[in-house]
Amino acid sequence: MRATRYYGQHDIRTEEIDEPTMKPGYVKVRNEWTGICGTDLHEYDDGPMFCPAPGHSHPLTGMQLPIVMGHEIAGVVAEVGEGVTKVKVGDRVSVEPYVVCNECEFCIAGQYNICTQAGFLGLSGPSGGFAEFCVAEERRVHPLGNLSTEVGALVEPLSVAHHAIVRSGIKAGQTALVVGAGPIGLFVAAILRAVGVDTVYTVEISAIRKAKAIAAGSTLVLDPTQENVVARIHELTGGRGVDASFEAVGVSSALQTAIDATKSGGNVVNISIWSHNADINLFGLVAREVNLMGTLAYCNDHAPVIKLLQEGKLTNVEQFITGRISATDIVEKGFKELINNKDENVKILVRP
Amino acid sequence: MRATRYYGQHDIRTEEIDEPTMKPGYVKVRNEWTGICGTDLHEYDDGPMFCPAPGHSHPLTGMQLPIVMGHEIAGVVAEVGEGVTKVKVGDRVSVEPYVVCNECEFCIAGQYNICTQAGFLGLSGPSGGFAEFCVAEERRVHPLGNLSTEVGALVEPLSVAHHAIVRSGIKAGQTALVVGAGPIGLFVAAILRAVGVDTVYTVEISAIRKAKAIAAGSTLVLDPTQENVVARIHELTGGRGVDASFEAVGVSSALQTAIDATKSGGNVVNISIWSHNADINLFGLVAREVNLMGTLAYCNDHAPVIKLLQEGKLTNVEQFITGRISATDIVEKGFKELINNKDENVKILVRP
Repeated sequence: MRATRYYGQHDIRTEEIDEPTMKPGYVKVRNEWTGICGTDLHEYDDGPMFCPAPGHSHPLTGMQLPIVMGHEIAGVVAEVGEGVTKVKVGDRVSVEPYVVCNECEFCIAGQYNICTQAGFLGLSGPSGGFAEFCVAEERRVHPLGNLSTEVGALVEPLSVAHHAIVRSGIKAGQTALVVGAGPIGLFVAAILRAVGVDTVYTVEISAIRKAKAIAAGSTLVLDPTQENVVARIHELTGGRGVDASFEAVGVSSALQTAIDATKSGGNVVNISIWSHNADINLFGLVAREVNLMGTLAYCNDHAPVIKLLQEGKLTNVEQFITGRISATDIVEKGFKELINNKDENVKILVRP
Repeated sequence: MRATRYYGQHDIRTEEIDEPTMKPGYVKVRNEWTGICGTDLHEYDDGPMFCPAPGHSHPLTGMQLPIVMGHEIAGVVAEVGEGVTKVKVGDRVSVEPYVVCNECEFCIAGQYNICTQAGFLGLSGPSGGFAEFCVAEERRVHPLGNLSTEVGALVEPLSVAHHAIVRSGIKAGQTALVVGAGPIGLFVAAILRAVGVDTVYTVEISAIRKAKAIAAGSTLVLDPTQENVVARIHELTGGRGVDASFEAVGVSSALQTAIDATKSGGNVVNISIWSHNADINLFGLVAREVNLMGTLAYCNDHAPVIKLLQEGKLTNVEQFITGRISATDIVEKGFKELINNKDENVKILVRP
């Protein structure tokens, strides 16, 4: 089959390889659309980081570079392994890329996202989304019903946002703050509205992203270059602060804003991956019992996201698709476009 | 009555003042022993910080300097107000010093420790522990039963430790890390053991405090100047990390150790009050879903602490009393002794 594989920094090749091996209980999916993730960009530009470098095979997949990339996968079921009942050939599905050990204390407790050996299809092998086919465990294949595979390719990043929201404990009718309107910040805003959070403040400085935040569902966008965001949030919330906040930038001032604008006893979810240390005043954590929570990927979030889409609570997600390209154009029209036109793009989908 | 009042930085005076006013539903306590808290030292040395400065009356007590100090209070009930049934004259009690509004969303939800206007007897008025009498609401007066008032004066700081442990979610049989063996670190170690946490690692560099940590109940003390503490913890826990950790130092390296030595999905409780920003690598929060939680004072912790003491699960707490002084000696034998002989002292009790 045709596959686009990552060989190492700035080296990605589209070539013919064997189809992935099927097993009982597994599903073979003909990939239709796979989104490009920020992680893919980092691997391409600075990697291998998450992908297993030569000589360092992934403990669960046994694979090392080259690896088929792409983990935001949607397609059509091409073949079902023995015992599979959840889907049938021809069903449109979103593929949850987690590959886990099923044996550690976290897997046993159902927290498979923090499995100590976790890997991902499209980063750790054995298959991935930038290829004709991938193979996944039945429980990681989520039927899309009447949703398109374009929307299906958004389910994975939307699940990242959904998981952060679950972690925050926020409830319908409450008030949230999202710091940063990059792809994940936008998805968080959209899902917050979908789950009934009426008031979503977004902090953003880019004019293009400000408009995207409003389109995604933010009720108000605040610009820290124009005003004191924390003071404004306190003014807007009667001195109380928001119920929960989401940090999706990865800079200290953004995290400080999130902490200081959150109510006493509230949760701040740190979604961004930091490339440097955070320099923060923790007084709010102690003086107001604010919690700073990490969030990693997703854990049982794909199905609820698909339900929100199917029920029409999460609408107009096509706005987030800012490009549709062929796998052979992945470097020029995918990675480079995303790096050079950061503000304009949200999600570029790849046709394998 | 005789009272020791704080007038401002380096100005504390023992003098005659009126007895505090009684009200229905309140209890007058003849103070027997009141501990000196780190907060009292900060007020004396750098204040007024928490105490209401002249012209800035506390919103609930209406008071400003001078204020009767002392909030780690134990004594004997001298008078009960109309309707009081919980205690009778002559009962030994520990006084929980919170003064709250009873009206904000946090008070209504039972989280009175994060009441937006909260104050403390001994810091915000109207009475305090370094005086012959204090007056407190019935529900803030906790019967000591057969416990002495010396032990009763420890109930307040032990409740701070207990609350941090409740916040951490740690369970009997699990493993904990306490970074720092100052008074609160020692109390955390002691209560962890009392609630059935079998393995308590303490990080400390002072030889005197190392010995105190072992006496308090730590099962092993690790010294970061002698070894890589995070690596050692991972070795000791089979690569897993501790279930929960407690940061009781207030320096970045201590917090980093706590985060990095905690298991995936585990909680790090930040107890210390920082005098500067924290400079920390947050990767563990995102990559392992570790939570960094604040903790403020206590909230329904006095009664369970007294129960642990009465049932003999929390024993030998007299070891933490390193001095017993008269209120007239509070500066020389109290504040200065605690500042100059930090490692030797844990808790100095004052006879008002």
